[in-house]
Amino acid sequence: MGKQAIGVVGLAVMGRNLALNIESRGHAVSVFNRSREKTEELVAEFPDRKLVPAYTLEEFVESLEKPRRILLMVKAGEPTDATIASLKPLLEKGDILIDGGNTHFTDTIRRNQELAKAGLHFIGTGVSGGEEGALKGPSIMPGGQRDAYDLVAPILTEIAAKAPDGEPCVAYMGPDGAGHFVKMVHNGIEYGDMQLIAESYAVLKQVVGLSNAELGAVYTEWNKGELDSYLIEITSKIFAKKDDETGQDLVDVILDRAAQKGTGKWTSQNALDLGVPLPLITESVFARVLSSLKVERVAASKVIEGPATKPFSGDRAAFIEAVRRALYFSKVISYAQGFAQLRAASEEYKWDLQFGTIAKIFRAGCIIRARFLQKITDAYAKDPALANLLLDPYFRDIASNYQAALRDVVSAAIAAGVPVPTFSSAVAYFDGYRSARLPANLVQAQRDFFGAHTFERTDKPGSFHANWS
Amino acid sequence: MGKQAIGVVGLAVMGRNLALNIESRGHAVSVFNRSREKTEELVAEFPDRKLVPAYTLEEFVESLEKPRRILLMVKAGEPTDATIASLKPLLEKGDILIDGGNTHFTDTIRRNQELAKAGLHFIGTGVSGGEEGALKGPSIMPGGQRDAYDLVAPILTEIAAKAPDGEPCVAYMGPDGAGHFVKMVHNGIEYGDMQLIAESYAVLKQVVGLSNAELGAVYTEWNKGELDSYLIEITSKIFAKKDDETGQDLVDVILDRAAQKGTGKWTSQNALDLGVPLPLITESVFARVLSSLKVERVAASKVIEGPATKPFSGDRAAFIEAVRRALYFSKVISYAQGFAQLRAASEEYKWDLQFGTIAKIFRAGCIIRARFLQKITDAYAKDPALANLLLDPYFRDIASNYQAALRDVVSAAIAAGVPVPTFSSAVAYFDGYRSARLPANLVQAQRDFFGAHTFERTDKPGSFHANWS
Repeated sequence: MGKQAIGVVGLAVMGRNLALNIESRGHAVSVFNRSREKTEELVAEFPDRKLVPAYTLEEFVESLEKPRRILLMVKAGEPTDATIASLKPLLEKGDILIDGGNTHFTDTIRRNQELAKAGLHFIGTGVSGGEEGALKGPSIMPGGQRDAYDLVAPILTEIAAKAPDGEPCVAYMGPDGAGHFVKMVHNGIEYGDMQLIAESYAVLKQVVGLSNAELGAVYTEWNKGELDSYLIEITSKIFAKKDDETGQDLVDVILDRAAQKGTGKWTSQNALDLGVPLPLITESVFARVLSSLKVERVAASKVIEGPATKPFSGDRAAFIEAVRRALYFSKVISYAQGFAQLRAASEEYKWDLQFGTIAKIFRAGCIIRARFLQKITDAYAKDPALANLLLDPYFRDIASNYQAALRDVVSAAIAAGVPVPTFSSAVAYFDGYRSARLPANLVQAQRDFFGAHTFERTDKPGSFHANWS
Repeated sequence: MGKQAIGVVGLAVMGRNLALNIESRGHAVSVFNRSREKTEELVAEFPDRKLVPAYTLEEFVESLEKPRRILLMVKAGEPTDATIASLKPLLEKGDILIDGGNTHFTDTIRRNQELAKAGLHFIGTGVSGGEEGALKGPSIMPGGQRDAYDLVAPILTEIAAKAPDGEPCVAYMGPDGAGHFVKMVHNGIEYGDMQLIAESYAVLKQVVGLSNAELGAVYTEWNKGELDSYLIEITSKIFAKKDDETGQDLVDVILDRAAQKGTGKWTSQNALDLGVPLPLITESVFARVLSSLKVERVAASKVIEGPATKPFSGDRAAFIEAVRRALYFSKVISYAQGFAQLRAASEEYKWDLQFGTIAKIFRAGCIIRARFLQKITDAYAKDPALANLLLDPYFRDIASNYQAALRDVVSAAIAAGVPVPTFSSAVAYFDGYRSARLPANLVQAQRDFFGAHTFERTDKPGSFHANWS
């Protein structure tokens, strides 16, 4: 019996769907799961597919062509370490482990370095697109040894999503943890996108008074233009969905308590470590946390008053267009922050990230897929060393043309008592970034006053301390 | 020769000043430093003071009464571990190490537990007030074994700052890392306070057009009222200070690039871990980071346009009062977030923190000392289980009376293109916290749509998944 070109360890939904995706491209796939039932179920469910079950790791490893290509789809953290430890004695120099789990990039760096000592290759790869993406074509962000990547690239390319121009949404991100890092920032950006859309919804509903039907129509319309994206598309569909049980609009039946799995948090914590301003994504993480305090909020709403509600008196169409502009421009600002984080990480961890390529592989398969990503790719094609997306001519034009709308929408929301943490954080970042002079001179004066922390001067280099008393 | 009741290891400025402070209360103090020169310098500089030098750790330990009380004032991290490792074999059961350094609370928890196995006590204590506070009276936040604290409490009480009512600014915070945790949140709050003041300065200068002399007068006036605090006091003095070299106002000569030592970052990262919304302090950390990108900002300012500048046309006195209200109310919101973090930490780490006591010991000695802290103590005295400061009647009144000013000031700043990240984050948090319903239902709908992450319903408990397609 011939050997398989690749095997998958871990047959929960993501692992199983990736195995089926690989098989659908004409490859027989070895499959293994710690509990044999999952393996048996899978081969029983798809008797006609070339899935080759193994019930011991020895058997599984033995069933693979050399160098072995093993895709790990197990739980991140301790289970991944345990699986690697079990596999390691069975492997030979040059074999390739690919971790497609939701792993923190620092774990990937550590594993890559440890396994390299034994002559084993380790690729940490982001896989975005959820269950359906895994099955039909995810966006794939692999990092690790370049030569190892080249040996798995043909299969990854086959199973990846295809962008509208036909390009596969996979590319080599960089050494060791680069792939999982890019996936982490992707997820942080996703948090930002979702919170921005949620705020646009709150403003349209609470300031303008749109019904769910009108909201659905607005997002459907927006999805035809520069906001064209998967998240806007599903938002438009969400407003059309009825609850099977009550017949009400489902969106109104869903509790306003947002959960999270922690990758947004990682993105913010890393930005704080790198010293990169990432306020918008961080506000979106905190917005989810605040939403989870439902009981406290309901109690607070009964004793803390906000502004009196007023019926909307302006030009509805004009205001809706202003919200669209505010949303698009805020999205630009969010990506400017996220890509600035990628840039800082690339320097810090010596990854030589290709920012234009990253935007490119986000164009299909993943949750943040959007027409607008092409503009980011274009910007870095024009200037690979671009310090910040806001400096690119296309995005500068958006800033020029849309900033008034963003300012108006934030002010209207604030006057109406509608919380817009990410919209307002977007304005603050934009105005801060374009300020030659910020009031941080006062902060430095205070620090020198109370702690002799010294300050720099505007007129000459050096560190100075004043005798303040 | 008699033995000393306490010894200090590490004679950099904080250690040396604490030793002098202890000595000034009538105690002879053993002093040790890794390099003997610092020890020699100190005793040579103060020949008449009861500072007993030791030049080996053996000699130092031998010179102390049992149980030994040793205050470590060495660099946080590895040097602290190294010092503890050197001391450990010389100590006996019941001896007490007190780490007064700028230590991350998780290190303190680890050290406390490790040393407890050897029968040694370990107190991690925040010491706030800088060099001068250390010498004359800092705010002291000790955590660790309660019985060990009782043995050092008399000395700590003597050297602590005294609040206006005469109470010493020291109290037992709780087990293991509680003291260093409270100090960390204190520092995060300090970041928030400083950024809020910086934004009030930016608005008064850029929107109203106040001169430095006028700004100095405004802060002097504000310091007489409910904003009365050390940071407002020094701010008023900063605007009066001339540069010795150029004769210009010094504040204008200081470069607008704010530095940081990382404790604000820790506070934000911990809030993300705990799942507590801490957006204001986090925005203030990011504001410092953004300020440090001076070269990028100057470049951006030349190509990205903001709103046209307009002369101020409103009622100056009324607007200045609105800024004062915005500042005070934002400060309230910031402390509400910080104390909510303390509350979450108290539960998570089982510390039983006393929030009113914490506010009390902040009233003198430390950088954030302020009249307003008494209001926090009062609030927790009335209701020790208060979920959020914004629910206390006094703070609710501030919210009622000042929220319109905060909304107006943020809108005016945004219209003028003046970045106000913490002011606007304050409004967003306030409006979010008092919202019975947030748009997070849409976020949950999206998560269920693309990832089958399920949602809760408003009408019954449980987890639900909709068939969206």
